[in-house]
Amino acid sequence: VDIARALQAVVDAPGFLVDADIGPRYRGRGGQGSPMAVLRPTTTEQVAAILRLCHDARQPVVAQGGMSGLVDGGTPLGGEVVLSLERMHRIEAIDPQGRTMTAQAGTILQTAQEAAAAQGFLLPLDLGARGSATIGGTIATNAGGVRVIRYGMMRDSVLGLEAVLADGRVMSSLNRMLKNNAGYDLKHLFIGSEGTLGVVTRAVLRLRPAPRSVSTAFVGLAGFAQVTDLLAHLESHLAGTLSSFEAMWRGYDAFVRRLCPSLRPPLGPEHAFTVLVEALGSDAGSDAALFERVLAEAFERGIVAEAVIAKSDRDRAGFWAIREDAGEGFRKLGPSLTYDVSLPIADMDAFAASVESQIAARYPQATTLVLGHLGDGNLHVVAAVGSRDAAAKKTVDDIVYGAIRAVGGSISAEHGIGIEKKGYLGWSRTPVEIAMMHDLKRAFDPHGILNPGKVL
Amino acid sequence: VDIARALQAVVDAPGFLVDADIGPRYRGRGGQGSPMAVLRPTTTEQVAAILRLCHDARQPVVAQGGMSGLVDGGTPLGGEVVLSLERMHRIEAIDPQGRTMTAQAGTILQTAQEAAAAQGFLLPLDLGARGSATIGGTIATNAGGVRVIRYGMMRDSVLGLEAVLADGRVMSSLNRMLKNNAGYDLKHLFIGSEGTLGVVTRAVLRLRPAPRSVSTAFVGLAGFAQVTDLLAHLESHLAGTLSSFEAMWRGYDAFVRRLCPSLRPPLGPEHAFTVLVEALGSDAGSDAALFERVLAEAFERGIVAEAVIAKSDRDRAGFWAIREDAGEGFRKLGPSLTYDVSLPIADMDAFAASVESQIAARYPQATTLVLGHLGDGNLHVVAAVGSRDAAAKKTVDDIVYGAIRAVGGSISAEHGIGIEKKGYLGWSRTPVEIAMMHDLKRAFDPHGILNPGKVL
Repeated sequence: VDIARALQAVVDAPGFLVDADIGPRYRGRGGQGSPMAVLRPTTTEQVAAILRLCHDARQPVVAQGGMSGLVDGGTPLGGEVVLSLERMHRIEAIDPQGRTMTAQAGTILQTAQEAAAAQGFLLPLDLGARGSATIGGTIATNAGGVRVIRYGMMRDSVLGLEAVLADGRVMSSLNRMLKNNAGYDLKHLFIGSEGTLGVVTRAVLRLRPAPRSVSTAFVGLAGFAQVTDLLAHLESHLAGTLSSFEAMWRGYDAFVRRLCPSLRPPLGPEHAFTVLVEALGSDAGSDAALFERVLAEAFERGIVAEAVIAKSDRDRAGFWAIREDAGEGFRKLGPSLTYDVSLPIADMDAFAASVESQIAARYPQATTLVLGHLGDGNLHVVAAVGSRDAAAKKTVDDIVYGAIRAVGGSISAEHGIGIEKKGYLGWSRTPVEIAMMHDLKRAFDPHGILNPGKVL
Repeated sequence: VDIARALQAVVDAPGFLVDADIGPRYRGRGGQGSPMAVLRPTTTEQVAAILRLCHDARQPVVAQGGMSGLVDGGTPLGGEVVLSLERMHRIEAIDPQGRTMTAQAGTILQTAQEAAAAQGFLLPLDLGARGSATIGGTIATNAGGVRVIRYGMMRDSVLGLEAVLADGRVMSSLNRMLKNNAGYDLKHLFIGSEGTLGVVTRAVLRLRPAPRSVSTAFVGLAGFAQVTDLLAHLESHLAGTLSSFEAMWRGYDAFVRRLCPSLRPPLGPEHAFTVLVEALGSDAGSDAALFERVLAEAFERGIVAEAVIAKSDRDRAGFWAIREDAGEGFRKLGPSLTYDVSLPIADMDAFAASVESQIAARYPQATTLVLGHLGDGNLHVVAAVGSRDAAAKKTVDDIVYGAIRAVGGSISAEHGIGIEKKGYLGWSRTPVEIAMMHDLKRAFDPHGILNPGKVL
C-alpha cells in the first residue's frame, strides 16, 4: 500500500491505473497474472523516480512498449508494477546534416518511419507490427525484420540512448556520431536485453537516405543449392542495394494454393523453393534495368527456373502478401506453434528436412512450413500439430531447438527470449556465457526488480 | 619468482621472454616501464592458464596485438606480464555460403583481407596500419578507418568471438549468424574495451561480396556548406556504394603544396576544401558512368567547384597519398600533436575555426591542420606548436577537447582511450556512464589485473 501510494504521487491521474482500469493491453498475450499497478509516466524523471521507489522497496517492474513482442517479454507474471512508456512518444529532433532522429521510447515505429520519410530519410527498421511496436520496445528486443540483410538490426540504427537503471540513476548516453570510442559502449547493455538491465527512455537513431527506387521479384527455384547460388549472385551484383531475400521452402507454395484463396501466386506450382527478392536503389533511372539484367543472368546460368518482376506497387504488395499475409491459411491448419531461429545457411536445408521428418514421425497429420529471412540466416518454422498444449509444445520445442543446437544455431534470431524460450537458453549459449549474463544482472540490478522471470 | 616460473611452464621456450630478450616491440611507443615477462601463447588454453595464474597472484597483464595503436593502450607501465597474441595467427575457416571468416586474434589484418579476397570476399575494415594491426587488436579497439561510412567499424564486422576472462574462464561466443537474440550480446563487452575486460582470442568475422568496381574522385569546394551538400547529394545518389568521404580543411592543400613536394595535388590551389570521394560498386559496366553523372550533377548545381575522377589505379593512389601520405610535410612542421575526435557534422566548421584560432592565440607560429572521415563525423587535428612536452600537450588537449565537450562530441572517434586520453574521459562521458564502466570492470575483473591504468 505504501509503495502504491508513493508511486501514485509520482505521476498524474491518467498515469496510474489499478484494478479494473488495467486493460488487456497491459496483461499481455498470456494474461499470466495481474499487475499491482500500471504506471504511465510522461518524463524520464518520472521513470527514474518510479524505479528508485521500486528498487528501495524490492518491487518488481516490467517495462512495456507496444506489446507486439512474440515471446511474452513484456507480459506481467503477477504483482509487478507495469511501467508503460506509451505516453513518452515525442520525436524530439531530426538533424538532417547529421542524419539522426532523437525520439522518446514510446514513439510508435511507424510514426518515426513517417517522420523520417517526410524529411527525405529512411529509418530502416521495418516489421509487420510497425503500427504498434515502439522505438523503446524495438531497442529492448533488438528487433530485426525484412531489411536486415542491408541495414542490420535495430542495434545498428541506435547511435545513442538514455536508459534508467534499476536504482533510478539516469544513464544519458545520447551519442550522435557514427564513431565514438570514448570508453565502453554501454548502450549495448540495453539493446536486446528485454528490459532486464534498465529501461530505455530515449534514443538517437541513425537515418539513411531515402531510397529512390524499389525493385521486387518473385522467383522459383528447383532446389536449395540454387537458392544459395541466387543469394550469392545477388549479393555480388546488387551489393549495397539488396534489402530482402525471403525464402519459402518446399510445401509453402502448395499450402498457399490450397488454403489461401485470397493470395495469387505469380509463378507456376512446380518450384521446390520460392524467393521474394527486393532491392532499394539510389538511381531511379538505371536501377530497374540493372535488377532485370542481374535476374536474367541468374536465369541464363540455370540458377533461376522462373521469375516475375513487380511492374507496380500492386504487384509488389501481392508478392509480399504471399510471404506475410497467409494468416487465413494458418488458421485453417488449426493450432500451430511458431519458431524464430537462426543458423548457418549451409545447414538450413538439412535442418528443415530434419525438423519436418521428426514432426511427421510424431504427428503424422502435421503440417510443417519453413520460411524466412534466408539472407540473414533466419528461419521461421510453423508447425501445426493439432494442439498447442504444454506437451505438444515441449515435444516440438525439443525437436526444433534440438536441431538448432546440433548445428550451433540460435534459438532466437530476432524475437528474443522472454518467458517463451527461457528454458532453452542453455541450448544456444554456453555455461560461461550464462554465468556472465547473471554477473551483468547482479551488477546493474542487484535486487532483481527489472522484468524478473524473463530471459534468465 | 614463483609466478614467473609458473607462467614459464605454461608455454614453450619461444613463448617466454624476460630481460634483454624483451624487444622494443613489447615496450610500446613510450617505453614507460619494463614488463616482468612477455608471454607468447599459441593456444586459447594457454591464454586461459596464464590469466588464471595472474588472477590468483594479482599479477597485472597487458594484452598486445600489432602495437599499432595510437593511445598507448598496449604499452606496459612497468611490472606487467605482456600477453602477446602474435603467435595465434591462424585463419581457421572461411565459409563462403555463410560469408564468414573465423580467425585467431593475432592474425594480421592484411593477411585476413587477402584471404577474404582470394575467395571473392571483402573484409571491409581498412586502415593505414593494415600490415601490422591484428584482428584481436582491431576488435579490442573497435578500429575504424576509411570505409566506415559504408561498412561500419570493426564492431560491425564481428559476428562472434572467443575471449578469456580475467579469471581464466573462456567465453566462447562464436556466433556465425547475422541475427542472434538469444540472451545478452556479450561480445560488445570486449569490442572497444581495450583489453580491460578480457582478452580476445578468436573471432568470427562477417565478409561482404568483393566490390566489382572502384570509383574515386578528388573534389574542390568553396566552403563548408558545399561540403555537407556534397555529402548529402552523394549519400542520396550513390546510396549503398559510397565508401569514403575524406575532407581536408582550409590550409591543408596549401600545406601539401608547400611542404610535400612528392605529392601532386590534382586540382587548382583556390579551393577552401578538398574532398576525396570513393564508391565501391557491384556493376563494373555501369558504375563509372553513374559516378561521373552524379558528380556532374553536383557541379551543375553549384556544389562542386572542380573535380577530377581517377582514370587509373595510379591516379587513385595519388589521390589517397594526399590524404594519407603527408608524413614528409608533417615532419617539416616540427613536433606536432595529433587528435582523433568525433562531433556532429553541423558543428564541424565552427569547431575547426575555434580550435585553430585558440591555438594561434597561444602559439602564433603554430600550424593547425584539420582533416578526416567527415562522413562518419570523425575529424583528425594536427597541431604543430613547436613542442610536444607535457605543458604544450596539456594546453592543446584542453583546447581541442574543450571544443569537443562544448558540442557534445567524443574525445575519441576511433583510436580509443588508452593512457593518452584517460584524463579527459569525463569530458565526453557522464558520471553515471563512468560509474557503470567501473561496475563492469569490477564485475569481470575484480582484482583489476587486466590492463590496469588504461581507459578508466
